[in-house]
Amino acid sequence: MTAPGLFVSFEGIDGSGKSTQARHLAESLRARGREVVLTREPGGSPGAEEIRALVLQGAPDRWSAETELLLFTAARRDHLERTIRPALASGQTVICDRFADSTRMYQGLRREDLRGTVDALHRLMIGLEPDLTFLIDMDPQAALTRAKARATAEERFEDFGLGLQQRLRAGFLALAREFPQRVVVIDGARAPEVVAAEIRASLDARHPA
Amino acid sequence: MTAPGLFVSFEGIDGSGKSTQARHLAESLRARGREVVLTREPGGSPGAEEIRALVLQGAPDRWSAETELLLFTAARRDHLERTIRPALASGQTVICDRFADSTRMYQGLRREDLRGTVDALHRLMIGLEPDLTFLIDMDPQAALTRAKARATAEERFEDFGLGLQQRLRAGFLALAREFPQRVVVIDGARAPEVVAAEIRASLDARHPA
Ligand SMILES: Nc1ncnc2c1ncn2[C@@H]1O[C@H](COP(=O)(O)OP(=O)(O)OP(=O)(O)O)[C@@H](O)[C@H]1O
Ligand SMILES: Nc1ncnc2c1ncn2[C@@H]1O[C@H](COP(=O)(O)OP(=O)(O)OP(=O)(O)O)[C@@H](O)[C@H]1O
Ligand SMILES: [Mg+2]
Ligand SMILES: [Mg+2]
Repeated sequence: MTAPGLFVSFEGIDGSGKSTQARHLAESLRARGREVVLTREPGGSPGAEEIRALVLQGAPDRWSAETELLLFTAARRDHLERTIRPALASGQTVICDRFADSTRMYQGLRREDLRGTVDALHRLMIGLEPDLTFLIDMDPQAALTRAKARATAEERFEDFGLGLQQRLRAGFLALAREFPQRVVVIDGARAPEVVAAEIRASLDARHPA
Repeated sequence: MTAPGLFVSFEGIDGSGKSTQARHLAESLRARGREVVLTREPGGSPGAEEIRALVLQGAPDRWSAETELLLFTAARRDHLERTIRPALASGQTVICDRFADSTRMYQGLRREDLRGTVDALHRLMIGLEPDLTFLIDMDPQAALTRAKARATAEERFEDFGLGLQQRLRAGFLALAREFPQRVVVIDGARAPEVVAAEIRASLDARHPA
């Protein structure tokens, strides 16, 4: 049996640089000879990508917060079984662009009373938490300006506006206080290479290869 | 506020006559002036029908038992919110062709250890049970012969074979003993009109209009 691999997630508000930094970290670890699976949520396995498409297309009120939560959890379960667990079992490092913390934040944003349900469902059907979560923190106004520069078909989740992004930022920072053993807050307002270097150093300090 | 309506479900092995009897009961109640919503699972609302299509198409091992359970629960939640609860709230009678008991049986058939998870998920995300459930019981061989006479694109769930149908029948009868207050066992091996008359009489006795 191989040693189980390391599970790293990236979290933060829209446009904070999660995908950019996840890619950076994957390349940096591969350059040092580590086997890395770079993946994302919602999605990350063929079945989960299909569920993702079903959730994200259509009108914003197409699904209630609870139905959406169940669909995201179904996608996460598939992703976990087909992509994440097999990679970890064979000793690979898994880097995941968003994971369960995003559900805690975004579903909670839709309905404040839902956090208990989110946690109960996570315990019942998912169970796994990342070994290490990088929360890329930054001012929502600056992140919004970045995100708006891109074109994407999935605008639904990025249409929150500044007020909601500010609540999200505060929520993510509260999560970091709730899970201090695994969540590391990174200042994302700096140049990408500076952020990447800090993330790499933080990972090496906590989980030496 | 109107008095809440009655929620009736039909359960039983494949080909036992659930759809036939659900239709019969709906017509019979409408003939006496009751407002009836006749619906089915998986499906029963536009969103739930889309989830149904996603679950039922593709290879049998496309989804794990847990992912399938989550998808069916998402469909049920949508069905509940968009179809069942509004109808009950306005005093209509809801007749549902399969409901949560089918999940208890079919998911349990896929994985015997899953019943606890099924029940926990039901309590967490659904909660509602029918006021009255008609379990149409009959010999699987005879039901299989009936079902085979029909042509349908969704063969996946009907491909169980006799041995599994026998386990399902026993499982449904065990459920009837588990929930004696709401489950009524009906002998489905008789002519449709005879079965329909018994169901109608049983409903009138328990829930006089
Ligand atoms: N440190 C940075 N400085 C300036 N621009 C950046 C930085 N990091 C990322 N960007 C740019 O900002 C935009 C958003 O970055 P990225 O897609 O990585 O964010 P994200 O957190 O994944 O966003 P989303 O939540 O929408 O997926 C991209 O155009 C990216 O090139
Ligand atoms: N009492 C009966 N006697 C003879 N044939 C019947 C009877 N009830 C139903 N049938 C016929 O048997 C077949 C299966 O019936 P039906 O579709 O109502 O069963 P079902 O329980 O809904 O099946 P499924 O689980 O596949 O949806 C149909 O062709 C139907 O016309
Ligand atoms: Mg991204
Ligand atoms: Mg039927």
